Amino acid sequence: VKEPPGEFELIARICAHLPQSRRVVLGPGDDCAIVASSPEPLLITIDSMVEGVHFKLEWGTPAMLGAKALAVNLSDIAAMGGIPTICVINLAIRPGLDPRFFDELYRGLGKAAVAAGVAVAGGNITRANELTITIALLGKVETQPMRRDSARPGDKIYVTGTVGDAALGLRILQNKIPAAGSARDHLVKRFLQPTAQIAPGRKLARIKPPPAAIDISDGLWQDLGHVLERSGVGAKVESTALPLSAAYRQVYGDNRDLALSGGDDYELLFCLRPRISEAELSRRLGVKVGCIGEITREKRALLVSGTGKPAVMRNRGWDQLRAT
Amino acid sequence: VKEPPGEFELIARICAHLPQSRRVVLGPGDDCAIVASSPEPLLITIDSMVEGVHFKLEWGTPAMLGAKALAVNLSDIAAMGGIPTICVINLAIRPGLDPRFFDELYRGLGKAAVAAGVAVAGGNITRANELTITIALLGKVETQPMRRDSARPGDKIYVTGTVGDAALGLRILQNKIPAAGSARDHLVKRFLQPTAQIAPGRKLARIKPPPAAIDISDGLWQDLGHVLERSGVGAKVESTALPLSAAYRQVYGDNRDLALSGGDDYELLFCLRPRISEAELSRRLGVKVGCIGEITREKRALLVSGTGKPAVMRNRGWDQLRAT
Repeated sequence: VKEPPGEFELIARICAHLPQSRRVVLGPGDDCAIVASSPEPLLITIDSMVEGVHFKLEWGTPAMLGAKALAVNLSDIAAMGGIPTICVINLAIRPGLDPRFFDELYRGLGKAAVAAGVAVAGGNITRANELTITIALLGKVETQPMRRDSARPGDKIYVTGTVGDAALGLRILQNKIPAAGSARDHLVKRFLQPTAQIAPGRKLARIKPPPAAIDISDGLWQDLGHVLERSGVGAKVESTALPLSAAYRQVYGDNRDLALSGGDDYELLFCLRPRISEAELSRRLGVKVGCIGEITREKRALLVSGTGKPAVMRNRGWDQLRAT
Repeated sequence: VKEPPGEFELIARICAHLPQSRRVVLGPGDDCAIVASSPEPLLITIDSMVEGVHFKLEWGTPAMLGAKALAVNLSDIAAMGGIPTICVINLAIRPGLDPRFFDELYRGLGKAAVAAGVAVAGGNITRANELTITIALLGKVETQPMRRDSARPGDKIYVTGTVGDAALGLRILQNKIPAAGSARDHLVKRFLQPTAQIAPGRKLARIKPPPAAIDISDGLWQDLGHVLERSGVGAKVESTALPLSAAYRQVYGDNRDLALSGGDDYELLFCLRPRISEAELSRRLGVKVGCIGEITREKRALLVSGTGKPAVMRNRGWDQLRAT
């Protein structure tokens, strides 16, 4: 039950890359970090990236990995319309990794933290047999948080950006789907270097009443399912309305399976009562927004094609409410 | 990058065991938890228990494991003199574990959380190849936190309870050291079911000026080293003053190696300026307290025996400042 040798050297190296902040009264090096309190309600989330499950080292650089470990947490704050503030990091390290690997990992993480205005208050290092980066992230909300349980019948369902890109990027990295050139680069980058939609989330949360929202991490269909279940409603989604990137279409054609079931896009899905046009929403949020369907009273999720006839769901995913 | 099947069933089972609280505005089931703010500075800590590194399933029950995963974090709050409030849990699950295993794990964790007044605000479940429980715990401080960097020459060094028991218990579980009867039971229990010294920590933090303090998780010598390094001081420790349990003496005799280097006791080590007798301290804190030495100006750690001659350190551990 000993820490690995060189822990102190590693912590010193790590701290060199991590942004500090005046909000952090006492940073890494004590039993706990101490952070100044703030009057707003606190957001808390925790998420983990496990080698062999969420990433393979040969897919990207350690810096990309560090940045993504933070991004997946930032995305949870974005989905609430919050502002990320402070994180603590638990690093489980396995044998066979060079100290320079951790330098790079934390350089990437530190850079992402600075960009997001997040201070690293502390952390812990433990031995393990698989490399795992677990981050607990705190945030605050300016006005009202966006929740999953506030979708109401008649709300329009929107998503930011495009969906399915990251899932396609993952399959390209796994050599399951062939791709080349700039389309390949785009899709792989969407998987390895996702962007949390912090600024759009904050802007969305200012709309009254705040939209129901979730980030697309498990896949659009499954994540929509979480909203429906928590809100006690159903949905009708128009498959032809799913926003696909040019790269997705180039590599995967008109097949929408991965747009529906693929995770890791870290786009926002939200349900809005006020009728605001896609163009106006895109302008306000600073990202492209597409309407993909509508919340319904009947507690089931329907995927319809352009003809209006319910399509058979081929994707795995959310199994509580399945299209019939 | 999919969550394991049955995640929702597992989360529902888990939530049934976990204490909620009015401080938690929004609990498990959304992208983030929302917690009411409080005016006190916030303590944050994160710690992890990894199968094969920190525990083996055959050593104890899942309930013990759940309780210990929280206890190791509670101990970090105790070392600051804080009050634990809210936690989030990241559970990395490997194949081959029954849902009832998680029921038991969370029953133990939930019971420990209730006992400590901690609310579980949320968490995350991920697939992995080794079972890992990572908890991020928040707390608050009533007055002044106890820090590692405030030890001053002339301070007396104290520890609560007895040391080395858990390390001996671990070696008994590993069949490295033979033991039987009530001594075995005591030592094994000290490893499997540690108690965080929350109440003594809170009482200690009320002393002015607040003592320098740390919890003994890596081993007394190493943890004392953290205090010395952060405070820029040295120490003289009297080996015969190390508080040993009757069970420790029965199984391990007069050998103090594990009392010095063994981790997992989760007792508190603290350095106190005011001269308060051991008896008075024990009465005030409600736990037995022993004086083991003194903080010195010279930046090195000396282990002395009753004769006053510095002894050669045989234990591994803290290597920045070693007895010469």
